[in-house]
Amino acid sequence: MPDVRFLPSGASVRVDPGTRIHEAAIQAALRDLELPCGGDGTCGQCLVELPEEGNRSVLACQTPVLRDLIVRVPETHDSALRVVGDSHFLVNEELLPDRGSLSPIFRAVRLKVPPASIEEHYSDWARLMRELGGDLAVSAPLAVLRDLAAALREQDGKITALVEERGASRRVVQVRAGYVSSRALGLAIDIGTTTVAAQLVDLDNGRVLASRASYNLQIRRGADIITRIDYARTKDRLAELRQMVLETINGLIAEMAGEAAAGATDIRAAYIAGNTTMVHLLLGLPPRHIRESPYVPTVNPVPTLSGAESGLTIHPEAVVEISAGVGSYVGGDITAGLLCTAISSNREDLFLFLDIGTNGEIVVGNAEWTVGCACSAGPAFEGSGIRCGMRASDGAIEQVDIGPGGATVRYKVIGDTKPAGICGSGLICLAGELLRRGVVDRSGRFLGEPGQGRIVQCDTRRAFVVEYGDRAASGEDLVITEADLENLIRTKAAIYAACSLILQNVGLDWSAISRVYIAGGFGRFIRITDAVLIGMLPDLPRQLFSYLGNSALTGAYIALLSRDHRRTLADVASRMTYLDLSSDPRYMDNYVKALFLPHTDLGLFPSVETMLKNERRV
Amino acid sequence: MPDVRFLPSGASVRVDPGTRIHEAAIQAALRDLELPCGGDGTCGQCLVELPEEGNRSVLACQTPVLRDLIVRVPETHDSALRVVGDSHFLVNEELLPDRGSLSPIFRAVRLKVPPASIEEHYSDWARLMRELGGDLAVSAPLAVLRDLAAALREQDGKITALVEERGASRRVVQVRAGYVSSRALGLAIDIGTTTVAAQLVDLDNGRVLASRASYNLQIRRGADIITRIDYARTKDRLAELRQMVLETINGLIAEMAGEAAAGATDIRAAYIAGNTTMVHLLLGLPPRHIRESPYVPTVNPVPTLSGAESGLTIHPEAVVEISAGVGSYVGGDITAGLLCTAISSNREDLFLFLDIGTNGEIVVGNAEWTVGCACSAGPAFEGSGIRCGMRASDGAIEQVDIGPGGATVRYKVIGDTKPAGICGSGLICLAGELLRRGVVDRSGRFLGEPGQGRIVQCDTRRAFVVEYGDRAASGEDLVITEADLENLIRTKAAIYAACSLILQNVGLDWSAISRVYIAGGFGRFIRITDAVLIGMLPDLPRQLFSYLGNSALTGAYIALLSRDHRRTLADVASRMTYLDLSSDPRYMDNYVKALFLPHTDLGLFPSVETMLKNERRV
Repeated sequence: MPDVRFLPSGASVRVDPGTRIHEAAIQAALRDLELPCGGDGTCGQCLVELPEEGNRSVLACQTPVLRDLIVRVPETHDSALRVVGDSHFLVNEELLPDRGSLSPIFRAVRLKVPPASIEEHYSDWARLMRELGGDLAVSAPLAVLRDLAAALREQDGKITALVEERGASRRVVQVRAGYVSSRALGLAIDIGTTTVAAQLVDLDNGRVLASRASYNLQIRRGADIITRIDYARTKDRLAELRQMVLETINGLIAEMAGEAAAGATDIRAAYIAGNTTMVHLLLGLPPRHIRESPYVPTVNPVPTLSGAESGLTIHPEAVVEISAGVGSYVGGDITAGLLCTAISSNREDLFLFLDIGTNGEIVVGNAEWTVGCACSAGPAFEGSGIRCGMRASDGAIEQVDIGPGGATVRYKVIGDTKPAGICGSGLICLAGELLRRGVVDRSGRFLGEPGQGRIVQCDTRRAFVVEYGDRAASGEDLVITEADLENLIRTKAAIYAACSLILQNVGLDWSAISRVYIAGGFGRFIRITDAVLIGMLPDLPRQLFSYLGNSALTGAYIALLSRDHRRTLADVASRMTYLDLSSDPRYMDNYVKALFLPHTDLGLFPSVETMLKNERRV
Repeated sequence: MPDVRFLPSGASVRVDPGTRIHEAAIQAALRDLELPCGGDGTCGQCLVELPEEGNRSVLACQTPVLRDLIVRVPETHDSALRVVGDSHFLVNEELLPDRGSLSPIFRAVRLKVPPASIEEHYSDWARLMRELGGDLAVSAPLAVLRDLAAALREQDGKITALVEERGASRRVVQVRAGYVSSRALGLAIDIGTTTVAAQLVDLDNGRVLASRASYNLQIRRGADIITRIDYARTKDRLAELRQMVLETINGLIAEMAGEAAAGATDIRAAYIAGNTTMVHLLLGLPPRHIRESPYVPTVNPVPTLSGAESGLTIHPEAVVEISAGVGSYVGGDITAGLLCTAISSNREDLFLFLDIGTNGEIVVGNAEWTVGCACSAGPAFEGSGIRCGMRASDGAIEQVDIGPGGATVRYKVIGDTKPAGICGSGLICLAGELLRRGVVDRSGRFLGEPGQGRIVQCDTRRAFVVEYGDRAASGEDLVITEADLENLIRTKAAIYAACSLILQNVGLDWSAISRVYIAGGFGRFIRITDAVLIGMLPDLPRQLFSYLGNSALTGAYIALLSRDHRRTLADVASRMTYLDLSSDPRYMDNYVKALFLPHTDLGLFPSVETMLKNERRV
């Protein structure tokens, strides 16, 4: 069997002849190779070099190993995780449950059970239940009942009970005499298609002991949901995807537990938010029906699971709750995210909630009602389909300022390195600046000819040079092409058209909105003025916009700690009206109208000139 | 170590010198030796013979083994179990839940889950839950969810789901495509202090596949509740008592499973009724607080348990429900028994419910309210404290007719053998006849002198010869003494006084009662006319009296099969008013007044002469 050795790690593995390099990398437990297209050979993201052949570059997903081989894997952007991580832990403190009145999924309850009397001859168990209060049925394993009488009489009725909440009922899993300290930890987890983020929480006081984020190892089998659903056709592959996400999460758990000096069995509860496909893959549920008409999940809501069932390295009898979704395309990540909105404070003010990634999920509503939809935004914001696009990791241009006339360009690079590409927020900023400086027209076409200023010819289209090759990481010009702008316009049009359709459906207009929430790691970096200028977000007073950061993770954290919020989430999930864009002809109409910068209907947006006048520059 | 060999079985065992014979019998797994007094040496029920010493009789509980020994154990009344058994399965068919609409604790549900549509895009799981209906939360293990999508699509949505109900929630433990047969059995169990009875039930249709009864092996450690509570002082002894009742029940299960050709894992549910102490011993819960002020159980109601926790040889994940009691002295056997009354049919007619054994439990009420109490009836009806008393087993006189003047006596013996003693129902019948024929006066004293007719001197008291020694099994006269009659009067007075006190408390008199239910194996044999004549039961029209047989077992059977009845039982248990007789001075007053035949207050009972005139002889 040929031996494959990977550089720079030095890891090596023996594989059957014909095995593709990518597969060998997985067998060698390399975490660095991504396969956004799922191995179709179309995305080029898995390029590796073969030093023995003069550093020839090949696609790892397409190249079979026929003999002993040395493979150099491009260095990963480890610091990207830090950046993603930061954005994943942006939490609005106001939204968090009051730490003085927590009702976590699992907790150590210290209480005094009064003795029985001739008049009040309730059993020990009945008196304990009464002190626990609440409206949920309570059970206990026999082992707890056996020691109950003694525990209740040892220290004047003072006890510490470990109580877990499983869906609609509670269970007392331990009773000890006296007020004793008992470590009870919980996990809030957001499983994104790209990134997994988690927090380790002290359930006694809600304190976050550690936070971690990491790329979802499933990326090896495809960057987007559709690719992964297709990959999961067989039982083996489904199991493989499940193991990959478990490996990802369990890696985070191990790191966090290490930081908090905790053992796996200290972790007694987990609340998981994720889109419907991610939840299915985590649980090993066949996801195919999500993308086959009539597009239904196998399971939603997900019944409460045990730690052992879940596959997480936590207490085997831990309570694992999974955020309920609305359907196949508005998942539990969105409903969890909504806990970060006015819904939690039970207000009637109307809000717009946007979670924009490869898919955009949009919700309009208030504490009384919600309408949601999902639109295919395309991967432009993730860096795909954009000539110099990249994720928001080290080397990515995330903010741009263009001088008058488009002659000079200043930009901000993540990690303060040489620029390597442009990420989603940089793209929006760049498009806004090009429009602001009159470099492009309302249809996204450059007004100048190649050779004028920074305009160049790039293949068959014109492009704008953001940075010249001598200052760029790759040595080649960093450009934005007309094709890139068309791509961006389609993306922003899809989002705006979806928002408009929801409002049309409920018979309201933009003026009814009193709050716009922008969720998702991506959203952290958007410059609102530019997003409005290009017509992606509505032209509303800037103070109405709020960034939520990783609202799915924050929502999971809130739900982990608060019974009221768990119920709110379940309630929102079961009551939200889902709007299927593909079955509403008005959507295409809205979309076509939005394929301009900012829009064909200048009644919706003032002219670019007016907007520029009104705009207070950042 | 000395060797002890038991005859007639031939079983032998080596024991430490000084071990008592009774202990050796337990170690040799002999089931025949009872120890009603718990080993105090006072009851004489554990007499054994030593053939090597000229068949000298010794008390097994008091006699140490000092050298090799041969011990002859008296033959047991095996057929007694049959008799007890018969009475345990007297079921009023009218009270049983409608077999067409069963809602058992565990069942195979066959249903058709409609496909999803674009309009109704509920998940597979959500659609299954909708078809299951009902108001209970539903959960499922992950393994079920994994196969759900395929099962729902294999046969047009037709599936067979195994659904269990655990307290206030349900769990789907298996889903298979198509309408398939799936054996699901359940157990109804009544754990009495003396006798354990059980039924094996097909949960698909409510059919009873097998029934068994057996003495509770705990009898080895004491005949009554108090003795057993005292014995259970240490963890080891508590565990021993638990093992004894488990051995009893599991023996019945094995026999019934054999009869029904079923395996242990076919048994997926059990509903257990028992008094509070029996429940504590079954679960290994320390029972001491039941008899220490303020007399509270450790656990009541008992949370739902698993088969594995329960120790029963049934499916380890079976659902085990235990009938909720009212308190220490009105247990789950009584609340289960009440399911056999008008409470189940939701009627407002007032009833009196009596379950008479060593303890008498009495309930007055209707579907709206209930008041219950427990009185210490003493062991007279079980045969203890009565010179020729015995349990209702082979050889026991259960019915008596005395000729005019007390000259001739006819009687009926259980098992049609020579008479060996008088059981509880025989005693009541005998007392009634003695009164009827003018042999005793209203205070229970014989009117004749020794030597007149069947009156003889017996120690210091007079006695009546029921059968002369030459026709009796023991060769000695079978008599009833004045001391026996005093004992019986105290017992019946305790019962009548308790009934009266409940009525006084609710401000009603006997005329308000429209039904008298007599429960318990004992009650099967009572002749109502005699029980009224001696003033144990009220003088109400005979057609108002109903025998319920083993109402605890029937109640357990009903609860096993019907959710409505499970809720009724829990409701009755939590709402019943418990009357503590010892704290009400009127009880002693009532009791003293009832220490006559029938009563001091002849306004309550007509004179014996009037009753005799009204009486239609049986």
